[in-house]
Amino acid sequence: MSSNLSNRRWVLADYPKGMPNESHFCLQENVEVPAIKDGEILVHARYLSVDPYMRGRIAPGPNYAAGVVPGGLMQGGGVGEVIESRSPAYKEGDIIETRDFGWQEYAVLGPKSNITKVDPALAPIQSSLGYLGMPGLTAYFGLFKVINAQPGDTILVSAASGAVGQVVGQLGAAHGCRMVAVASSAEKLAWCNQIGYDAGVNYRSTSDLSGALRAACPDGVNGFFDNTAGPIHDAVMENLAPRARIAICGTVSLADRLGSPDVGPRYHRQILVSRARVQGFLVFDFVDDYPEARAHIAKLVQLGDFQFKEDVSEGIGNMAAAFLKLLHSENFGKQLIKV
Amino acid sequence: MSSNLSNRRWVLADYPKGMPNESHFCLQENVEVPAIKDGEILVHARYLSVDPYMRGRIAPGPNYAAGVVPGGLMQGGGVGEVIESRSPAYKEGDIIETRDFGWQEYAVLGPKSNITKVDPALAPIQSSLGYLGMPGLTAYFGLFKVINAQPGDTILVSAASGAVGQVVGQLGAAHGCRMVAVASSAEKLAWCNQIGYDAGVNYRSTSDLSGALRAACPDGVNGFFDNTAGPIHDAVMENLAPRARIAICGTVSLADRLGSPDVGPRYHRQILVSRARVQGFLVFDFVDDYPEARAHIAKLVQLGDFQFKEDVSEGIGNMAAAFLKLLHSENFGKQLIKV
Repeated sequence: MSSNLSNRRWVLADYPKGMPNESHFCLQENVEVPAIKDGEILVHARYLSVDPYMRGRIAPGPNYAAGVVPGGLMQGGGVGEVIESRSPAYKEGDIIETRDFGWQEYAVLGPKSNITKVDPALAPIQSSLGYLGMPGLTAYFGLFKVINAQPGDTILVSAASGAVGQVVGQLGAAHGCRMVAVASSAEKLAWCNQIGYDAGVNYRSTSDLSGALRAACPDGVNGFFDNTAGPIHDAVMENLAPRARIAICGTVSLADRLGSPDVGPRYHRQILVSRARVQGFLVFDFVDDYPEARAHIAKLVQLGDFQFKEDVSEGIGNMAAAFLKLLHSENFGKQLIKV
Repeated sequence: MSSNLSNRRWVLADYPKGMPNESHFCLQENVEVPAIKDGEILVHARYLSVDPYMRGRIAPGPNYAAGVVPGGLMQGGGVGEVIESRSPAYKEGDIIETRDFGWQEYAVLGPKSNITKVDPALAPIQSSLGYLGMPGLTAYFGLFKVINAQPGDTILVSAASGAVGQVVGQLGAAHGCRMVAVASSAEKLAWCNQIGYDAGVNYRSTSDLSGALRAACPDGVNGFFDNTAGPIHDAVMENLAPRARIAICGTVSLADRLGSPDVGPRYHRQILVSRARVQGFLVFDFVDDYPEARAHIAKLVQLGDFQFKEDVSEGIGNMAAAFLKLLHSENFGKQLIKV
């Protein structure tokens, strides 16, 4: 049988050189939804996730995961309702989350898809794309497994009001760390302060970022949760405490991955003198520890003070615009599309 | 009593900007050797050590150890004979090694000096400045504690024929690693091959260092013992295997620490994609493990195949020239001055 449903989906029009714009994406309308086969399910999106890692997926260079080729469906996670099932594991009406949804209204998922069942009674279903999903787990592993944050440490976080950064801030504050936010507006910093960050620096309003970080971290930075790379990274490298740990989580501010690489100061002398450790990580590296991370975050939520700001755009037609907003740091909180 | 001895000693004339030259150093002749006090010893140098770290000590920027100020005695290690003692711990004729000797013929050492007794019957006394001393221990800790080298790993070493690099090569080969040398001449590489390196790249004779490393390390670099930073570091970052470990041991190729920092490509994307770890370290970080390291190296020496090339200049008058030779990669093996 055919589903008789009409899909809307975003494909990559072309690899961006430097900062992407709307011309790099194309919305296809009236795309037929194929009939599902044995073992598959058909899912109607409720929320789609917009994340910085998508920038890496639309670059032709090597990445930790296969990327999107021009003409291909844009990759991304989503949470939605099972509307047809030929799998014994799922029934109509189930809510599921998957990182394999794609930028589309309807997804056909099979046995190879990464699917997690979502209990709508436990938390708003979109939290499976936020603090109980990839961003929240990323925050937990970067802070505790990579930075190895200790009570009393000064921990600096870039993109501090973003989906990952706001969880890092609250996890670190609850752990007894001194949390310092870097963000792009006074409004974002005020909110960071409200959720437990002890200090903040607006990187857009200072002409001396290194000096501003020094003022905010007079004893140096013990841990740096780096969501951006680029100039913020550089300024932190000039403010390392001895044995600083730097978790490279995201590189969204690196300008262009098509041509020659970004150029900036070399900080190997600082790494040597501080005996610092710079480490790249992915949430998938810690898949065995997902239950531990989810339990830790859920416990913090149950204590009652946990906050999580979402920036929700309506309609799949706004998906590319929401992604560009994110790349320009114009979102405020976890960027979602409500379908 | 006065010692009636006349000292010759090198002082820093001025901070170099960029590459130092002879004008930055000054040899003082006929300097009176002070009488020693209770608890002190007077030591006559036999060998003085010339090491890349001295470049960092003559820069005004922050370092892991206090530097030399213009007019001050150049810092450095040495091995020599106790010729007068007012300490119960040492007697005339003892051979001692200290990192606190300075670039001079006679040193007065006290209870605060870092002194190690040397047994001349066990090994040539200058080995306490080489494979049984700071360079050898540095090689051991960088390879086993920072890189955490495993049998089968491809380990790349810059300045591979230098005092540290030649020990790294032999320790790694004995551990079952595939060792790849980077050095500045075919002659050095031939010798690296003789001591156990499996492949080598002459960075001065290639216009595509990244490609040359890719040919030498087709499966990527699992471990990188970085003695230089700079362009060799850059080329390695383009050839990382998943979960590569990079030990930042020396940064001698960074041009100028007085003005703005060196500039080069930003490799945070590669660090993220490879889940790489970049870590700075100093031999002093592992002081509790010195006996373990010395025993490991001594055991390798006892097996009979261990080699250690020294580049010995005669006379303290040649000390500055030997240091400059080292900075220009014109030494071949551990640089020493025989006094």
